[in-house]
Amino acid sequence: MQKLNQPRKDFLKRLFDRKSTPEAEMLKKTMAIFETVKRNGDEAVKSYTRTFDGVDISHLSIPILMEDFESRVDGSLKEAITWAAENIRTFHEKQVPGKNENYTVEVRPGISCGLRYQPIESAGIYIPGGTAPLFSSVLMLVIPAQLAGCKKIVCCTPPDKNGSVNPVIGYTLAYLGIDSVFLVGGAQAVAAMTYGTESIPRVDKIAGPGNAWVTLAKQVAFLNGTGIDLPAGPSEVAILADDSADLSFIAADCLSQAEHGYDSQVLVATTSERIFNDLIPEITLQLNKLPRRDMAQHSLEKSYLIYVPNLEDAVNITNLYAPEHLIIQTRSAGLVSEQVTNAGSVFVGSWTPESAGDYASGTNHTLPTSGNAANTGGVTAKTFMKTMTTQTITQDGLRELGPRVVTMAEAEELKAHGEAVRIRLKKLKGNIYE
Amino acid sequence: MQKLNQPRKDFLKRLFDRKSTPEAEMLKKTMAIFETVKRNGDEAVKSYTRTFDGVDISHLSIPILMEDFESRVDGSLKEAITWAAENIRTFHEKQVPGKNENYTVEVRPGISCGLRYQPIESAGIYIPGGTAPLFSSVLMLVIPAQLAGCKKIVCCTPPDKNGSVNPVIGYTLAYLGIDSVFLVGGAQAVAAMTYGTESIPRVDKIAGPGNAWVTLAKQVAFLNGTGIDLPAGPSEVAILADDSADLSFIAADCLSQAEHGYDSQVLVATTSERIFNDLIPEITLQLNKLPRRDMAQHSLEKSYLIYVPNLEDAVNITNLYAPEHLIIQTRSAGLVSEQVTNAGSVFVGSWTPESAGDYASGTNHTLPTSGNAANTGGVTAKTFMKTMTTQTITQDGLRELGPRVVTMAEAEELKAHGEAVRIRLKKLKGNIYE
Repeated sequence: MQKLNQPRKDFLKRLFDRKSTPEAEMLKKTMAIFETVKRNGDEAVKSYTRTFDGVDISHLSIPILMEDFESRVDGSLKEAITWAAENIRTFHEKQVPGKNENYTVEVRPGISCGLRYQPIESAGIYIPGGTAPLFSSVLMLVIPAQLAGCKKIVCCTPPDKNGSVNPVIGYTLAYLGIDSVFLVGGAQAVAAMTYGTESIPRVDKIAGPGNAWVTLAKQVAFLNGTGIDLPAGPSEVAILADDSADLSFIAADCLSQAEHGYDSQVLVATTSERIFNDLIPEITLQLNKLPRRDMAQHSLEKSYLIYVPNLEDAVNITNLYAPEHLIIQTRSAGLVSEQVTNAGSVFVGSWTPESAGDYASGTNHTLPTSGNAANTGGVTAKTFMKTMTTQTITQDGLRELGPRVVTMAEAEELKAHGEAVRIRLKKLKGNIYE
Repeated sequence: MQKLNQPRKDFLKRLFDRKSTPEAEMLKKTMAIFETVKRNGDEAVKSYTRTFDGVDISHLSIPILMEDFESRVDGSLKEAITWAAENIRTFHEKQVPGKNENYTVEVRPGISCGLRYQPIESAGIYIPGGTAPLFSSVLMLVIPAQLAGCKKIVCCTPPDKNGSVNPVIGYTLAYLGIDSVFLVGGAQAVAAMTYGTESIPRVDKIAGPGNAWVTLAKQVAFLNGTGIDLPAGPSEVAILADDSADLSFIAADCLSQAEHGYDSQVLVATTSERIFNDLIPEITLQLNKLPRRDMAQHSLEKSYLIYVPNLEDAVNITNLYAPEHLIIQTRSAGLVSEQVTNAGSVFVGSWTPESAGDYASGTNHTLPTSGNAANTGGVTAKTFMKTMTTQTITQDGLRELGPRVVTMAEAEELKAHGEAVRIRLKKLKGNIYE
C-alpha cells in the first residue's frame, strides 16, 4: 500500500486517472469473435466453448428445474438467498417509474408533451463463472429486469467442467422463475446475444459483470448498437475514516475488496494519524488468515493510503477518485455522505461493510468502476427500461407553433421541415375561409 | 421508395436490421486521432482543424458575448428561439428527480437503503457545423444540462471559414448564458473533451449529434470510460397512416425527413390502399419544389412503403422497426400511441408534424436511431445526472444481515467478504458480554 501524506490535488488527478483505451490486439480478437459468431451462429459458439472453456457441449441451453437444484443447496444458503432477494426487490421496486415520472404537460395551449417509461423487451444477463460461482449477480440483474417488466430474460453463463451449471446459480435462477440458461460464456456469449444465433436469441440490452474479455465484448456490442448496462472494470473501494474509526474494520474492508482479483484497488483517505500509521500492520496481520492471500497482497500493492488533516479534503479526495464503493467510518457519517458527489454506492457508518451491499442490503452491486461513477450510477430497474416522448398538437396549437417552426427550420436551411408545417397551416386556413 | 404489400415478419426483421459494426479502417483512424490528441493536446487539435476544416485558428476558444450576436439575428428568429426554449424548459424540468425518485426505504429493521440523483459535474456538448447551423441542438442539449445542475458545460463546434462561430449558434449560446465556445469539431473535439488538453477541459460525459465521424468518436470516448448520451446514427421517421390520413401531409413528412442527409430513412406503414397507391406520385410532386431535392431523392430510394390491412399489424411493424420518430396519422391517434413500444418520440395526430419536435414543441430532438429505440430513449435532464445508492445499517440490522452475508460470501468462495462482517459481529458480541 502506497502511503501519501497530504498529496497535491494535481498529483492525485493524474494518479486517479483509470481511463484506458482497450488494447488494440484484444479489441481485434474480440471483434473477430463477433464476426465469426455473426456468420456461423451456434457452431461458432460451440467451437469457442471447446477452445476457451475446454468443454464440448451438444445443447447450448439446459432447462432450469427447481427439483434439479433444490437438494444440492444448503438450507441456510437458500434462506439467505430468499432474504436477500426480498431486500433487493423492496429496494428496486421503488425505481419502477410511477405517475410523477410518466407525465404529460401542456406546455402551451394546444401543445401537450409527454414522457413515459417502458420496459426493454428482451434483456440479456451475463453471469460470470470462473473462480467463484456468482449467484449474487443473478439476484442483482434478474430482479431489476423482472421488476422493469422485460418480456424475455435471456441468461448466459459459462459451463462448468461437466458441461452443466453451478448448482447455486441453477437454484437462484429457478427461485426467480427463470426456466432455462445458455451454457455460454466470454465474448462468444455477448456476441451471440448481440446478433442472435439459431439457439440464442438476440436481445435489446446486455447486462452483467465479467472479466476483461466480457467487458470489452460488451463495449463491442455497444459499438454494434446493442444496449449495455455499464462497462464494469476491476472492482474498487474507497474508505473515508476519521479517528473514531475502528482500525480492524478498515483493514477487513480493505481485504474484502482486495480479494476480488489481482487488479482490484483500495483507497483509504483518513484524517487520523493513528490510522495512517497503524493500518498497514493491521492489514498484514489479517491477511495471513486468508486463503486468497496472494491475490489480496497483489492488489494491495497498487492501493493508496492517504492522510489529510481535514475531513472536507478527505471527501474531496474520494469525490475525485469516484469509487465504485465508498465506506464512511466517521462521526456523523450520514451527514458526511451528503457531501459525496461521485460514488457508485455508499456504505454509511461503522456497521455497514461493503459486503452488505454486495449481497443482501438491497442495493445493487453492479456499479460503475474506473472513475465512471462521475458519469453514471449502477444498475437499477430503469436500466431495463427506456423512455419515449410524445407530443400532441391541436389545430390551435399548430397555429401558434407553426410559424415559429418555419422560421427556425429555414434558418437551419431545412426547407422541407418548414414545408411539413406550411402544408398543414394552409389546410387550416382552407378550413376557415372555404 | 420500395413498396411492400403485406410482407412477412421474418423478412421485415432482416430488412429492418440497422445494426452495423464500425468500419475497421474508420475505427483505426479515429483511435489514432484520439492517441494524437491525448499526446499533443492543443497542437494536435489545431493541426486537425487545419486539415479537416481548412481553418487556421490561433485561439481554440472564443468568448460568447450577447452584443456580438444580438444584431446579427432576425427578430422573428430570436422570438422563436425564446418561445421554443421556454417549451423545452417546461417539458424537461419535470425530469429533474423529485422526492419520489430520491428515496430511502427501510428494507428491514435497521437496514435503510437509499437512492439519489446528482448532476454530472461537467458536460461536453457537441454542436455540429456542416451544411446547416444546428442552433436547435444548442437548445436541446444545454437546457437539460442546466436543469440537471451541471457545474461546467463545455461547448464545441467546428469553426466557420472565418475561424468564428455561426451567429445564430452564438446568439443561442449567449441567450442560454454560455460564456465561451471552443471552435473545434469532428473526432478531435470529442477526443479533446475525453482527455482534456491545455485549453479544452476534460468532461465527464459528452452529448450531441454529429456525422458518422463524430458518432464513432463518441463511441471511442465511451471505450475510454467517458459517458456519452447515445450513438446517434442517420435520422429516420416512421409514419403510421390509416385511410383518414391526409396524403399531402404524409408526403411532406417523408420529405422533411429525407432532406436530412443522404442516409436518412423513411418508413410508411399504412392500412390504406389509397395511400399505398398514391403516396409516391404525391411525394414526386412535392419533391420538385425543394432545394435539397437530390439528397431527399437519394434517401427515399432506400425507404419503404408498406401496406397491411390491419392497424394492429401496422403498429407491430413500426415497433419492430423501432424508429427515431414516429408520426401517427390515424383515427384515435392517442389510443394508437399507447400501443407503441419502440420509438424515440411520437407525433400524435395529423396536426403534429415531426418538425414540431425537432424545434419547438418541448420534447428533445436528440433521439435513438438505427433501432436503438428498442433499448434507450432520447436525451432528458437525467442524461446529465447519475444515481448513487446508500445503505445505513444499525447494530441490530447487522445482527440480522451479518450471518446471511457470511453464508453467501463463503458460498461464493469470498472469505474476506465474510470476514468484514465477522469482525464486526465479534465486536458486537464483545459489547454485549464484556
